Amino acid sequence: MARIITLTTDFGVGSPYVAAMKGVILSIHADVTLVDISHAITPQDIRQGAIVLAEAARWFPPETIHVGVVDPGVGTSRRIVYAHMAEQHFLAPDNGLLSRLALRTPPSTIMAVTQSEFWLPSVSATFHGRDILAPVAARLSLGLEPSRLGSPLAELQQLDWTEARVSANKIEGAIESIDSFGNLITNIPADALTNVPRGEEVAIVCDEHETRGIFKTYAEQPQMTLIALVGSSGRLELAIVGDSAAIMLGVRAGAPVTVTW
Amino acid sequence: MARIITLTTDFGVGSPYVAAMKGVILSIHADVTLVDISHAITPQDIRQGAIVLAEAARWFPPETIHVGVVDPGVGTSRRIVYAHMAEQHFLAPDNGLLSRLALRTPPSTIMAVTQSEFWLPSVSATFHGRDILAPVAARLSLGLEPSRLGSPLAELQQLDWTEARVSANKIEGAIESIDSFGNLITNIPADALTNVPRGEEVAIVCDEHETRGIFKTYAEQPQMTLIALVGSSGRLELAIVGDSAAIMLGVRAGAPVTVTW
Amino acid sequence: MARIITLTTDFGVGSPYVAAMKGVILSIHADVTLVDISHAITPQDIRQGAIVLAEAARWFPPETIHVGVVDPGVGTSRRIVYAHMAEQHFLAPDNGLLSRLALRTPPSTIMAVTQSEFWLPSVSATFHGRDILAPVAARLSLGLEPSRLGSPLAELQQLDWTEARVSANKIEGAIESIDSFGNLITNIPADALTNVPRGEEVAIVCDEHETRGIFKTYAEQPQMTLIALVGSSGRLELAIVGDSAAIMLGVRAGAPVTVTW
Repeated sequence: MARIITLTTDFGVGSPYVAAMKGVILSIHADVTLVDISHAITPQDIRQGAIVLAEAARWFPPETIHVGVVDPGVGTSRRIVYAHMAEQHFLAPDNGLLSRLALRTPPSTIMAVTQSEFWLPSVSATFHGRDILAPVAARLSLGLEPSRLGSPLAELQQLDWTEARVSANKIEGAIESIDSFGNLITNIPADALTNVPRGEEVAIVCDEHETRGIFKTYAEQPQMTLIALVGSSGRLELAIVGDSAAIMLGVRAGAPVTVTW
Repeated sequence: MARIITLTTDFGVGSPYVAAMKGVILSIHADVTLVDISHAITPQDIRQGAIVLAEAARWFPPETIHVGVVDPGVGTSRRIVYAHMAEQHFLAPDNGLLSRLALRTPPSTIMAVTQSEFWLPSVSATFHGRDILAPVAARLSLGLEPSRLGSPLAELQQLDWTEARVSANKIEGAIESIDSFGNLITNIPADALTNVPRGEEVAIVCDEHETRGIFKTYAEQPQMTLIALVGSSGRLELAIVGDSAAIMLGVRAGAPVTVTW
Repeated sequence: MARIITLTTDFGVGSPYVAAMKGVILSIHADVTLVDISHAITPQDIRQGAIVLAEAARWFPPETIHVGVVDPGVGTSRRIVYAHMAEQHFLAPDNGLLSRLALRTPPSTIMAVTQSEFWLPSVSATFHGRDILAPVAARLSLGLEPSRLGSPLAELQQLDWTEARVSANKIEGAIESIDSFGNLITNIPADALTNVPRGEEVAIVCDEHETRGIFKTYAEQPQMTLIALVGSSGRLELAIVGDSAAIMLGVRAGAPVTVTW
């Protein structure tokens, strides 16, 4: 029986809203293990939440229940969904928050969460994380069958996740996220780099910044050097050794990246 | 037997002081569930701590032990208190930190925490959270009777919690807190709005900013619109759709709010 | 059997890297208690990480497993080490992160962590926290003998931890860390102050700022006063009552402090 519940929200670190969700969960199932994936998602940034959830969830054991709340449309007709992906359970507003994960591991089951008997008795118009998602997660952790949550759906709401374009001697991608060290993480997967040389003959350009060579780890070059490497997320990233590439270069998510050789 | 202990402090996120408290608790009772309500209370802001504790605590199950540490008077003659409120246990310095909750749910028991046999053997003058509150919380979670903590008290230290003034066609209140989305939360409860119209005929004014109508949820108006609604805390709030009202309007806690119709 | 695992990293609060480590640990041992000591260490600041770990770890029970990841040299030849100190277990890169603790409580056992059978099957070049330290910590919590992790080492990597210099009527030290309240914590231990007078005759100078007397707690002087006291870490600290000494005085870690009487 599932006993781990993770939370990913844009509520901000130290928000009492997060605590309220935990209180609701523990009131229904006191013996659950709660894990914060992140509450530092930029407010209402569904794409960022989707990337963080996709990165972090895969490291958790089967049957983990992941709850995502980045929900600018709360209280409107946007659905709340349950999805079963990669042997784990996901609950979130159906606004694309699960779409990044679903690209990699298509859901085996999707349900519209509509059966209010599993929610708090009184549901606010502005906080479905506490009033719907938290109690449903707690009940799943107690063994509730997902099929009882509502009616099956054919698919999840999608977002546009552009893939890097790979040609004979060029890859065109983009910066997709920035980590807490300021490393710039692209949408170019390690797979796409299999036949790319690693030495001086390969050039990686992001905005007007260029570096040559693809390295294995940060410490292979001197401090303050811009380097490219395949990071721990399994994708190409740009980093400044010992400092923040995002701050030093002023690069933001969405910036184009080309690899040529 | 109580097994959940929550922590609310102004120590800052990632403070080793929080970890020290958790270490002390786990050294006495390893099988407790620790939940962080918030460590992002503005340093020494007792009012903010009192509001956060009052908002979050009510979602936790009966017998939860809540520990609050916003304690500018640590080491002086200010008391440390235990209070039993709404079937939960609270431990805090007696400086008003529990006063907001006590307004809503008057304590059934209040004790001065004076029996040092339940504290760490050596008590510093500057960190009673670690040396007194943490070990007492851990012992309560093991079943220690609150009556053994010290002597009964008649009442808790109060703070001035101004209520909104309701008249025939006007409510006068104030912004009481600001959440992590920058939503401005007033001291006007939903109850006070029962007979207030929801349409264009009602005007909500905060500082020099005015909006008309009371909505159900954020997404009912276009992005960047100032709206009023009853938020998840059950009180009137002002929000800017898709952005931070606090930043966009420059409004702070304490700003006056009037509702007229 | 050890069941508490703590994490201290420079990944930033809300980093999915922290969540990935927790997922790996829970995938191996679901019944462990995870405690965050801090993820707010300044990126790559090994000294700060070492101080935080030394302050916090000692409050945890025997057999706690502490994992530290501040690892600018990840993927290079720097070792990963296990150390047994003060009846607790420590895992970290061997870059000085454990050196502060080792000064106070010399390790009884040190092992190079080299046996890859206890790691994730695939180890990245950039995230040994997730791929090596997390799974090893989880296996220790399940009872794995530390002696199986690799080969014994004679000593840990050291950093330069300057001790305060004590003479007949003068102590020369430095600010070593700054807490979340902006209090300036020195490297002068309470022991060194045993024979120092506490009244007006003792002067404490830090940069160009001077205060007189050594107090017991913050509230003994009026708001906005600079005071010296022995703080909860058992060392001399400088504080501004009700405000941040670090911000008000512009003092940083490393600033010299002299006590004369």
